[in-house]
Amino acid sequence: MADQPKPLRIGLAGLGNVGAGVYKNLLKNRSLLQERTGRAMEIRKVAVRNPSKPRTVAVPDELLTANLDDLIEDGEIDIIVELIGGIDQAFTLVKSALERKKIVVTGNKALLAEHGKELFALAEKQKTPIYFEAAVAGGIPIIKTVQESLVGNRIDSMIGIINGTSNYILTRMAEEGLDYPEALKEAQDLGYAEADPALDVNGWDAAHKAIILASLSYGFWLRAEDIYVEGIQDVSLVDILFADSLGYTIKLLAVIRLDESGGIEVRVQPSLISNGHILASVNGVFNAILVNGDVVGETLFYGSGAGQDPTSSSVISDLADAAARLGDCGGRRTGFVPHGLYGQPVAIDDTVSEYYLRLQVADNPGVLAQIATVLGNLDIGISSMIQPEEHEEGIAPIVLMLHYATFGRMKEALRQIADLDCVRAQPVLMRVESL
Amino acid sequence: MADQPKPLRIGLAGLGNVGAGVYKNLLKNRSLLQERTGRAMEIRKVAVRNPSKPRTVAVPDELLTANLDDLIEDGEIDIIVELIGGIDQAFTLVKSALERKKIVVTGNKALLAEHGKELFALAEKQKTPIYFEAAVAGGIPIIKTVQESLVGNRIDSMIGIINGTSNYILTRMAEEGLDYPEALKEAQDLGYAEADPALDVNGWDAAHKAIILASLSYGFWLRAEDIYVEGIQDVSLVDILFADSLGYTIKLLAVIRLDESGGIEVRVQPSLISNGHILASVNGVFNAILVNGDVVGETLFYGSGAGQDPTSSSVISDLADAAARLGDCGGRRTGFVPHGLYGQPVAIDDTVSEYYLRLQVADNPGVLAQIATVLGNLDIGISSMIQPEEHEEGIAPIVLMLHYATFGRMKEALRQIADLDCVRAQPVLMRVESL
Repeated sequence: MADQPKPLRIGLAGLGNVGAGVYKNLLKNRSLLQERTGRAMEIRKVAVRNPSKPRTVAVPDELLTANLDDLIEDGEIDIIVELIGGIDQAFTLVKSALERKKIVVTGNKALLAEHGKELFALAEKQKTPIYFEAAVAGGIPIIKTVQESLVGNRIDSMIGIINGTSNYILTRMAEEGLDYPEALKEAQDLGYAEADPALDVNGWDAAHKAIILASLSYGFWLRAEDIYVEGIQDVSLVDILFADSLGYTIKLLAVIRLDESGGIEVRVQPSLISNGHILASVNGVFNAILVNGDVVGETLFYGSGAGQDPTSSSVISDLADAAARLGDCGGRRTGFVPHGLYGQPVAIDDTVSEYYLRLQVADNPGVLAQIATVLGNLDIGISSMIQPEEHEEGIAPIVLMLHYATFGRMKEALRQIADLDCVRAQPVLMRVESL
Repeated sequence: MADQPKPLRIGLAGLGNVGAGVYKNLLKNRSLLQERTGRAMEIRKVAVRNPSKPRTVAVPDELLTANLDDLIEDGEIDIIVELIGGIDQAFTLVKSALERKKIVVTGNKALLAEHGKELFALAEKQKTPIYFEAAVAGGIPIIKTVQESLVGNRIDSMIGIINGTSNYILTRMAEEGLDYPEALKEAQDLGYAEADPALDVNGWDAAHKAIILASLSYGFWLRAEDIYVEGIQDVSLVDILFADSLGYTIKLLAVIRLDESGGIEVRVQPSLISNGHILASVNGVFNAILVNGDVVGETLFYGSGAGQDPTSSSVISDLADAAARLGDCGGRRTGFVPHGLYGQPVAIDDTVSEYYLRLQVADNPGVLAQIATVLGNLDIGISSMIQPEEHEEGIAPIVLMLHYATFGRMKEALRQIADLDCVRAQPVLMRVESL
């Protein structure tokens, strides 16, 4: 196209777990992303500690540098993506970027929790934003949701399960009756917890995220000493079991709440929540944040709270926001439906799932054989069957769970089964949806 | 402020349930919204069928008009908010607005499902967007999430509970053992179902939303005849009970899925899902959409799928997007933390909740009285107590659930209890979080 806008030119700082994910996924969905944003994204330089180290992603040698200043001094770079972690070096990098009016994208929650006040003041002064979707809850778009989607709401509370390691440990204790050291060991073996798990299990990772979430809703930066933080190290199995017997689940919750006097309550503590609430269904390494707004009511946002791919999804969303900001005044293409990238609708008869089938049949021997024959001839497997004991005289219900088959094949089976003499009522068929 | 940008000038078409909510909530959070977006929002005209009808919101007479054309012809109006519902008149209104390059905000799913292709083509041509967050799932920001937050993802599937009426009916059948007519009657009595509930219970309301969701992910508009739609009218209690005994919950699901050959599967059917999945915990009138992206993995977005306030939260978010688009090239303030609107952190000792307290005490009479005395003196009520039978010789566990108290008061109680001779181990205290 003649008037193709210039590519977005990115300087990537850090090629660890998340940095490598951003590099990989920008390549993977390159054309889709360009189609949707109207702009190519080009990584111009990648700063790493040791350029000669072997890596999981193949970055051309000429992009690599060991010097963070190379990203800042490259006048062609529009955006600095800070994924080096730690505080001091990252702080210097982000400040230098803003001073040169380079947009910053970061996933560094500790940096923002400690220096957010100063960095965002500089961002305002420089009219150059910092995007930080990846800093809280990995792939869950909670930052954009609070900043944009809930813009018309006073945020009354945010209650989050925002440390995946802790949630994994508590889930395994509850599900398998493990004690804390066993569950921690398992999390470490699976790579869900670091060899030194302190920051995750002592609540401070969640506290950093809570500081950021509170700043979004209430517009000021809490200091670490303003927050009360307890971790999960002392949660014992016996309390998990007692809580369950009372109808509760124990979760590490970050609670951010506007109280009646207009004060802001922020704390991280293991807490009991009712089993019936959707937040109690957030298990394993998943995160979720329950947000109560005065207009929208109760909402919940759920997804992977960490990990290379989910976190890079958030970084890429921030890059698209940055691209729109640097582009023409039209901004993001929000409000337009993207151009077609995919094929045509699939006919319903070709769709595949498992099925639930309930029949009312004559209470005679041989009936099941007739039904199984119809299903077998159509190559539809039976995975389980229940035949409840209570039933009307002479008529027996049968419930069958069936293996994967096309809807078309299933409808043909249903037609043939309905025609059998032994079948006494219209069969009931429902899909079993695999999630 | 000297360089305050001009207010966003809105023409509101329709003052029914959602229209009245938008009017009310724009007023309610006026200063907060102006603080966050940097712009005032001013409703300049409100078109209603009958200007003299009594209303739940007090709209000044001089804003009211019975003529939709008045909104279009007012050159001062930047944005038309279409909340009149129906198809033909709304279609004419939206087309006229786009032709005049007035941005459109609409919550009209039937309009978009039927005329989306033509309207979005016109929007492209006019470089004037249509925002439609309120058209799908009420207050849940699913449109922005898919368009922006998941922009770097190929969407592999979206599986939604997106009709609140149907979900309420199925929930009540499952929880209370009601049959379908009883549950429908209850939903009607509570205002969750219309006198004529057809569009909700026959699946077509969900189907309209599914058409919109599919267009976002795959960039083309399905026709109604491309979709397979079944409602919940024929779901019987016996199937809900059998499904439960097999570990499943029946939900009305809209399924939008990219299949292996690149085709798009779109259907609405009552389906079985595993009880252990978070989607099975979506009950009552709530909606939720499970989105699987190739980068982000599994995410879920949950909230009120209908209603005056939740839906107006989405309309207001669209208005803020429109305001940013019409403003300077900076766009939304995303990437900056808003200015402070609220007070100071609350001290942890002043925060209030219910509590779980587990003690290990000497297995003697009189022990409970000592503990109850400490709690009573501090005005902390006991809501329930369990004393498990199995325990070590001479030491008995006691689990107490306590009424609301400040954390400070609770810590004082804990200190006094730990000092009692009868208490044999450090007490365990956890909050019970009310959600």
